[in-house]
Amino acid sequence: MKLLKDTISRIEKIDGSLAVETKRRLDNLTKPLGSLGRLEDLASQIVEITRDQNPQLKHKVIFTFAADHGVTQEGVSAYPKEVTPQMVYNFLRGGAGINVLARHVGAKVVIADLGVAVNMDPHPQLIIKKVGLGTQNMAQGPAMTKENAIASIENGIAIFEQEFKKGIDMAATGEMGIGNTTAASAIASVMIGHTVEEVTGKGTGIDDKTLGKKIAVIKKAISLNRPDPKDGIDVLMKVGGYEIGGLTGVILAASARRVPIVIDGFISSAAALIAVSIEPKTKDYMIASHVSVEPGHRIVWQYLGLKPVLDLELRLGEGTGAALAMGIIEAGVKILNEMATFETAGVSEKQ
Amino acid sequence: MKLLKDTISRIEKIDGSLAVETKRRLDNLTKPLGSLGRLEDLASQIVEITRDQNPQLKHKVIFTFAADHGVTQEGVSAYPKEVTPQMVYNFLRGGAGINVLARHVGAKVVIADLGVAVNMDPHPQLIIKKVGLGTQNMAQGPAMTKENAIASIENGIAIFEQEFKKGIDMAATGEMGIGNTTAASAIASVMIGHTVEEVTGKGTGIDDKTLGKKIAVIKKAISLNRPDPKDGIDVLMKVGGYEIGGLTGVILAASARRVPIVIDGFISSAAALIAVSIEPKTKDYMIASHVSVEPGHRIVWQYLGLKPVLDLELRLGEGTGAALAMGIIEAGVKILNEMATFETAGVSEKQ
Repeated sequence: MKLLKDTISRIEKIDGSLAVETKRRLDNLTKPLGSLGRLEDLASQIVEITRDQNPQLKHKVIFTFAADHGVTQEGVSAYPKEVTPQMVYNFLRGGAGINVLARHVGAKVVIADLGVAVNMDPHPQLIIKKVGLGTQNMAQGPAMTKENAIASIENGIAIFEQEFKKGIDMAATGEMGIGNTTAASAIASVMIGHTVEEVTGKGTGIDDKTLGKKIAVIKKAISLNRPDPKDGIDVLMKVGGYEIGGLTGVILAASARRVPIVIDGFISSAAALIAVSIEPKTKDYMIASHVSVEPGHRIVWQYLGLKPVLDLELRLGEGTGAALAMGIIEAGVKILNEMATFETAGVSEKQ
Repeated sequence: MKLLKDTISRIEKIDGSLAVETKRRLDNLTKPLGSLGRLEDLASQIVEITRDQNPQLKHKVIFTFAADHGVTQEGVSAYPKEVTPQMVYNFLRGGAGINVLARHVGAKVVIADLGVAVNMDPHPQLIIKKVGLGTQNMAQGPAMTKENAIASIENGIAIFEQEFKKGIDMAATGEMGIGNTTAASAIASVMIGHTVEEVTGKGTGIDDKTLGKKIAVIKKAISLNRPDPKDGIDVLMKVGGYEIGGLTGVILAASARRVPIVIDGFISSAAALIAVSIEPKTKDYMIASHVSVEPGHRIVWQYLGLKPVLDLELRLGEGTGAALAMGIIEAGVKILNEMATFETAGVSEKQ
C-alpha cells in the first residue's frame, strides 16, 4: 500500500500554464491558424504534461500486460484460455500485432505476466510479476482479494518505475487475457452506471448466443459482489483482473512522473476508469488512442471526456491502437518543434 | 492530348481476384478474425492494386503542386496570393507542415510549380511545369482554356512518370494555392450537384462576411461559365486550377501504373472527382486519407464512396493528411507481411 500511496501523492495537477505560450508558437508557424487541428492539440497537451516546450518523444514504451480470468469457466470467450500464455510467447518472439505496430512507430514493448494461469518459461524480455495463477471466477465470488488488487496495481507501478530508469518520453497501455472484455464490461457498467447490455460486445468474436451468456454472467457477478462504483480498488477486486490492475498502476506511475500515457482499447480504458477513481488528476495525463468496435469503449471515453485520436474499427488490444496513436502524437510534437515560422520563412501573414 | 489518352487507355479495372486469398492469409494471423479492422482492409486494397501479395511501401512519394488562382481578385481568401510562391520556397527549405510530416513517415515530397503567378527562382528540388501565370478570374470567364486544362493534366502525368522511373510504391496528392478552396468548392458543387453553400467553407480562415462573398463569387462563376457536370475537363477548364489539373494527372498516371494513390484534403478530392469523371476505374486506386473541417470534403468522399482513414480536424492541405494516412496504410501492409500465423506461433484457434 505504501508504493501506491506514495505514487498517488506525487501526481500533480496539470495547470495549463504553458497553453498560451504554446498556442502563440503554433500560431506563428507557416500554416493558417489552427489548421493542423488535433495535431496542435496533442502537441500542446504533451508540452503541458512534460513541462518541456520542445518535448522529444524518442523513448516510446508500450506496457503489454497479460493475465488470466477465472470467469472463462463460464464460457464467455471465443478462444480457450491457453491462448493467453501462447500469445505471450508470440509477443516474445515478435510475431504478434503489437510487435509489428510497435516496430512501425519505433516503440518498445514491455511484456509482463501479471497473472497468467500457468507458470511461464523464463525469457530475458519477460517480466514475471504474477499476483496469482489467474483470477477467481467473478460469477462465484470476488475476482481477487483486496490485497491482490493493491498488489496488481503496485506491480504495475514497479514495472513502470524499472523502465523509467532507462528513459520513457511517452508510455502506452496494452493487454492480453482471454476473458478480459468480460471484466472490462463489468467495470464500465459499475463505474459509469450504464446497463451491462450497453457496454458489452462480442470481444474476440463470440456469437449472439454466447453474448447473451456473457451479459448474464456479468450481471450475476455484479449482483453477487456488489462493487462500490465510487471505489476503483473495490471494483478491481470484485470484477477486475490482474493485468487491469497492473495497467492502473502504469497510469498512476506515468502521471506521477509527468509522462504522457496513451490508453489503448476497451480493457485499457477500464484500467483508466479505475485510475481516475483512485486519483482524478490522472485524466489530464491520458490520451485516448482510438475508439474500437466494442460498444463500451466509446462510452468510457465519453464518461472520461476524452476524444479518441483514431477510429480504425480495431478490437485487438495488446496496445495496437495505442501504438498507431503514438505515431500521430509524435507527428504533432514534430510540427511544434520543426516547422518554420512566418518570420523565418518570409511568408506573409493573414490579411 | 495523346499523353492523356494513352494514360487513360492503360488504366485497368481492379478485379478483386486476390481478395479471397488475402483474407485467408489475414485470418491465419495470430489475432481474432478481422480484429485489425481498417488496417486489414487497407492491406487488402494495396495487394489488389499492386497485384503483389507481399507489397513493400518503401518508396512513398507525395506530389505537392502549386498554382495561383485569378479568382483571388474577388477577395475570397484570408491570405494574399504572394503566399503561394512564399510557401513553395518554404517547401524547398523543408520548413512547412508537409515537410515535417513527410519526414515523419519516411515519404519524399515532389514539389512542382504548375502555375504560380510569378516566375520562381530555379532550385534543384523544384519542378517547373507552368501552364500559365495563375488562372484567369473564374467570376469573369473560364479559369483557363481547354488546351491549358489538358496541358495541366498532362504535366501532372509527366511529373509522375519522371518520378516513377526512380520508384514509387505508394503516391499521394498535395497542393498549395491561395484561392484554391474556392475552385474546389465550385468543382464539388457542379459535379456532385450540392448547393454552393453546402460545399463551401472558411478555407484558410475567412470571416463570415468573406464566406458570404466567396459563396456569391462561386455561384456567379458557375452561372456565367455553365460547366458540364458530366465532363471533368470542362469543369476543370471553367472553374478549376492548374494544380488541380496536375493532381488529376497524377491520379490518372498512378492508376495506370497500378500505384496506390492517397488523396489528401478538399482540393485534392476535387482533383479526384475530375479523375473519376475522366476514368471511373481510377476510384479503386484511391485511398481517402482524412476528412477535413471543410464541409465539402465529407460530401466528396460520400459521393465517391470512399471512407477516410483519419479525422483529425485538419485543413492545411499540402499533402499533410495524406502523409499521416500513408503511415497507417504502411502499418496495415506490415501486419500482412510480418505477423505470425496461428500455426507458426503455436497459438490455438477459435473454439
